[in-house]
Order: sequence, then C-alpha cells, then structure tokens
Amino acid sequence: MTIYNFAAGPSVLPKEVLKKAQVELLDIAGSGMSVMELTHRGKEFSAIIAHAEETLRELMAIPENYKVLFLQGGASTQFSMVPLNLGLGKKAYYAISGSFGKKAFDEAVKLSKSLDIEPISLGTTEKTHFDRLVTFDSSVKNSDAAYVHITLNNTIEGTTIYELPDTGNVPLVGDMSSDILAVDYDVSKFGLIYAGAQKNIGPAGLTVVIIREDLLPTEPVLSSMLDYRILAKNDSLYNTPPTFAIYMAGLVFDWVKAQGGVNAMEKRNREKASLLYDYLDSTDFYQSPVRYKNERSICNVVFRTENVELDAEFCKEAEAQGFKNIKGHRSVGGMRASIYNAFPREGIVELIDFMKKFEREHQR
Amino acid sequence: MTIYNFAAGPSVLPKEVLKKAQVELLDIAGSGMSVMELTHRGKEFSAIIAHAEETLRELMAIPENYKVLFLQGGASTQFSMVPLNLGLGKKAYYAISGSFGKKAFDEAVKLSKSLDIEPISLGTTEKTHFDRLVTFDSSVKNSDAAYVHITLNNTIEGTTIYELPDTGNVPLVGDMSSDILAVDYDVSKFGLIYAGAQKNIGPAGLTVVIIREDLLPTEPVLSSMLDYRILAKNDSLYNTPPTFAIYMAGLVFDWVKAQGGVNAMEKRNREKASLLYDYLDSTDFYQSPVRYKNERSICNVVFRTENVELDAEFCKEAEAQGFKNIKGHRSVGGMRASIYNAFPREGIVELIDFMKKFEREHQR
Repeated sequence: MTIYNFAAGPSVLPKEVLKKAQVELLDIAGSGMSVMELTHRGKEFSAIIAHAEETLRELMAIPENYKVLFLQGGASTQFSMVPLNLGLGKKAYYAISGSFGKKAFDEAVKLSKSLDIEPISLGTTEKTHFDRLVTFDSSVKNSDAAYVHITLNNTIEGTTIYELPDTGNVPLVGDMSSDILAVDYDVSKFGLIYAGAQKNIGPAGLTVVIIREDLLPTEPVLSSMLDYRILAKNDSLYNTPPTFAIYMAGLVFDWVKAQGGVNAMEKRNREKASLLYDYLDSTDFYQSPVRYKNERSICNVVFRTENVELDAEFCKEAEAQGFKNIKGHRSVGGMRASIYNAFPREGIVELIDFMKKFEREHQR
Repeated sequence: MTIYNFAAGPSVLPKEVLKKAQVELLDIAGSGMSVMELTHRGKEFSAIIAHAEETLRELMAIPENYKVLFLQGGASTQFSMVPLNLGLGKKAYYAISGSFGKKAFDEAVKLSKSLDIEPISLGTTEKTHFDRLVTFDSSVKNSDAAYVHITLNNTIEGTTIYELPDTGNVPLVGDMSSDILAVDYDVSKFGLIYAGAQKNIGPAGLTVVIIREDLLPTEPVLSSMLDYRILAKNDSLYNTPPTFAIYMAGLVFDWVKAQGGVNAMEKRNREKASLLYDYLDSTDFYQSPVRYKNERSICNVVFRTENVELDAEFCKEAEAQGFKNIKGHRSVGGMRASIYNAFPREGIVELIDFMKKFEREHQR
C-alpha cells in the first residue's frame, strides 16, 4: 500500500532528499564522519551552512541587506523574540487571522506585563472561527509602530495572504512557517520573516529568520540567545546550531532549486490544490470552512462533512487506506490535507478517488 | 585511514546507532514514513519520545518527582531560563570554574538589569585560567538563595566536579552538558539538571532538562517557550519538538543501556582517560593545564606542548593522520581530546602512539 502523509508538520520530505541523506549518513563528503558528528566550527560544516544560506538567498531572492539566521525554538520562540528585539518602547500591530497569529499576539501581551511593549490588535476574525483574513485600513501605514505582524498561511484554518498589505515605512513582520518556499513572496516587502522548518524546509528543530539589517537591535536584549544582533553577528554560530537540520534544509533547498525554484513550486502547488478545491466545490457532501475562495490555502486544504461522526469515520477509513494524518487540528476537528512542496500530485488524485468513494458509500 | 573524531561537540556517535538510523531512515517501524516526517502528535512519535524518556529515567535513576523535558536552544538558553524560572525575587549563587559557568553567570546578570534577580558569584578561578574548580564554604547551605549553579564538566578547561557540594535545602542546579551519562551522578542531589545533547546524547539541537517538580514556577514567566511549567505540562509538546534529535537520543540511550548503563560507561571512560593522563604524566614534553589530578576531566583531556608553534604543528600532523578536531578551544589554544562515551578506546591507544612519535621527532 502506498502511504500518503498529509501531516501538517513535521510533514512529508522529498524522497530524493531522504535517500541522499541515507546514503551519506555515516560519511559526509568523504570525511569519514556523519554529518551529525561534525563540529559546527570545522570546515565541513562551514561549507554546509554557507551552501544552505546561499541557496536560500537565491531561491527567495533575499536582498543583501538582510541577514539569514538558522535558529532553534520554532515560530513559538519568535513570538517572543520579535517584540523583544523590535518592539521595546513602541506600539506593535497584530492582524489576528488564525490560531497562531493569536498566539503571537498573546506572547507579546505576556511580555508587555514586564516590559515596555504595547501590542495592539488590528482586528481578529476569531468570532467567525478564523474563516477569513483580517483586513486593516491604511492608517497603520502612517503610524510610528515598531511593526505590523501577519501570519502568511494559517495552517490550522487553511487561509493564506497572497497580496501583501502595504504598511509603508512600518516594517512588515511575517510568520511564514507554513508557506515559505511554497508561495512566492517578495522578501523586500518584509522587515522580518520567520519560519519553522518542519513544513517546507526540513526536519523540526530549525527556525529560519530573515531580518533586514537596520532592524537588528542596538541595545542588548534580555538574553543572548534571544538577541538577533548577537545571533547575526555570530552567523548563527553563537552556540551550537542544529547542524543536522541545517544540513537537511540545505538538501531541500537544492531540491527546490532543481524543481525550478519557488515560482515553479507555487505554480505546481496551485495546480495540486485546485484538484482538491475543484472537487470540494463540485459536491455538497464536503464543505470548506474558508469563507472566500481567494483566501484559500494551497498548503493546507481544510474540509469537513456534515457532522463529526462522519468526519471521524472518514479519518478512520482514510488512515486504513494509507492516507495518513488527514485529521484536522484538534482545536477545529474535521479534515485537513497538508500538501506542501514535497507532497506528490498522485496523492491528491488518489485522495479524491477515495473521497468520491466515501461520498457514494455515505450519501444519505 | 581510520578517522578518530576528537571534537568537543557535536562529536562522535556510536556507529551502531548511526547504522540503525541509516537503515530505518526512510521507513520507521513499518510506517512507510521517515522518522523526520512523523507528526509529533501521532502514535509513532509518541512511542519514540515515551521510550526515550523511560530509558533516560532508568539510566540516570531519575526519581518520580522529577520532570524530564526535551527542549531546544542548547545550554546557552538554559543560562537564561534557570534564573527566569527559579530566580525571580531571590539571590542565586554561581560557582564559576570555567568559560561556560561564566557565561551562565553573565546571562543571569544580563537578566538582572531588567528583572528582579540577584546573581552572586561564589568565586571564580578565572585569574588562573580556570585551571581548578571553585570551592565554596558551607554558608551557602543555610541561605535563602534560589539555587546554587555549578558546571559539572568544564568542556574547554578539562576539569570536572566528581564530588557534589552539599548545598542543604538550597537547590543545586547543574549544567551537565558535557558529562551527562558519562559520569554517574546522583540525580536526587540536584534541583535541576540541564544538558545540550551534542556530546553524550545525540545530534545538536536538543537540550535535556531534568527538574524537580516543586521547582516549576507558579507564576507565568516572560515567554511560554521559556516557561518550564508550560513545557512540563505539555510533556515537551507545547510546540513542535526536535523530533529527529529525540529519536536519535533514544537510540543512544538504548546503546548506553546495552553497554551496561552509566556506571559502566564511567568506569570505561576512566580507563580510557587514564591511558592518556598516565602518558601525559610520564613525559615533560606535554603538559596538562589542570592543577589538581582529582579534578581532571575524563571527557575532555586538555594538553599542550611548550609553545604555540609546536601545538600548531601537532594539530596539523594529527589531522593528517586521521586524528580530527584535536585542536583546543579557540579561547585557550593547545590540544583537547574529547573522548565521550562513544569515543573508542583504540582511538586513544593510537593517539598515544602518535604523541610518542611526535615527541621523539620534535624533542629538543
């Protein structure tokens, strides 16, 4: 039975990448050592991290005045690092269009209890279960806020920002965890981008941060490990970085490049997602909870049947047929097909066949 | 040529462990998925993290009233988390016997500029280049301090605490990064232990924290990702953990168990280290900078010749002979043989042969 892994993250990786990692697991580049055994200050690992950064810069067309950092702690740690580094003594705006955007805001609020930070919500769509994106007016643009925080792709709710808001000279900070390298964004429109690796980049335990140099703090922050300036100054080697995850990320970057780059990936992802959305639109048996078609995520396709019992039955039968981890996030239920860059088109075709069969068998 | 990797971390891993990881890299436990592709909330990964914790508990005889956490950020992040979680509104003592102990103290001082924390040095041996351990009197024991912080093994300077200080009812906090599972400590003597994985546990990017439950904070700390209480309550799954590193750690724990456990490892490590120290003691050509024999590290054997030119020549010739990464830390120079659990005895025997040859060839 072919296994298709619809997990939202950690999620499917390119088979070619896994095979390459397997082949060289005990001996990287003729060193006689596993990549996991390389000291992070040696020439072998220096080449690996430099190559990873170079390829990512090329793929995303990252301008020279941006630093690329390979960190730990996930997007959840960035929820605190962004306000700590950028927000002291200032207002900071948050557009809350999903559960993770809300968490980002909540962490800034938590910090504001001890430190001089003023997080302000630009609006939230929580009342309608985050079924749509927050829109905000242009008054933000002329403000003296430290930044405007957005979540590019709402992994749990299945919505995506495709058109970036114009925030003028207020830096745009984007959580790009679930669509980095899958949707082709213009990096120069951001002040800071962060992304957990475990969806489109590589194994869990690595966080990529892309920061415009003028936003690096000028005063020390609370902890060296949370201080973008210190981490940037040390080229991500202030302490021991997650070396194996960085190596894997480099292999994935090479793979994306071989696929034609980010624009080609987005095109392919759109086609993959369309197959599924077109089918969802053609039937009343399944529904997408996303309110507007132009906000639908091409990375996380969320859907459900008319009731929770049938959803549970769907997940159970799907699992038995090799469609793994298609259950929706525990906070919202239903189903979710996470179909990131490495997810193969055939898996979607086969899922649709299964969905049709399930529909026939469970139609009233 | 056989390669012997003397790196201080990331460092050599057991070959058996790497081979097992290689075999199952594309398909873990018949799931059809790589361990890197497993969702952290699925049954496959739940079994992996549960097994890792169970084995570590058994290996270190961790009492039931201690939580085991698998985190990110390295010991460097713990330098801030310990005072943030345990130290608010209190004094905290630091015994500074090495570069990392100094960093731990410095991070607490950094925090104290914004928060109500009072780090106090119990003494430092920096003046003598950390050639010995700090000893401190028993007045600490009867104090109302939040904790006493010690570094068990000084990776850079090559000293180790084998006899734990009696701090009475003041919790002992130990940075065990470079000798966890290599020296057999009594966990119940500690309030909190932390260790970066990349020396004796597994790949970089994982940090193990062992904390006595009554020391978990009762008030929220600044950031959820820095809050032991939240991380413990969520069994290390508050956000996506470094899943592959946890899997590798589990394999290493199994391997340590198969070797006879921590006590057997310490015995073997003592024998390994003795070979090298006995030779160092037998010649004037090489010197150990460590002042007292009973403080010598069995994990990091630091030595040097009479001058830096000869040290450089030694490192160069050693490298060419397959003795990799034997150069001392950039802050102290000289040589350092890091011979953790997974480092094979043969490598030390061969190194000594090389050292004798080098001595003959470069004797004045």
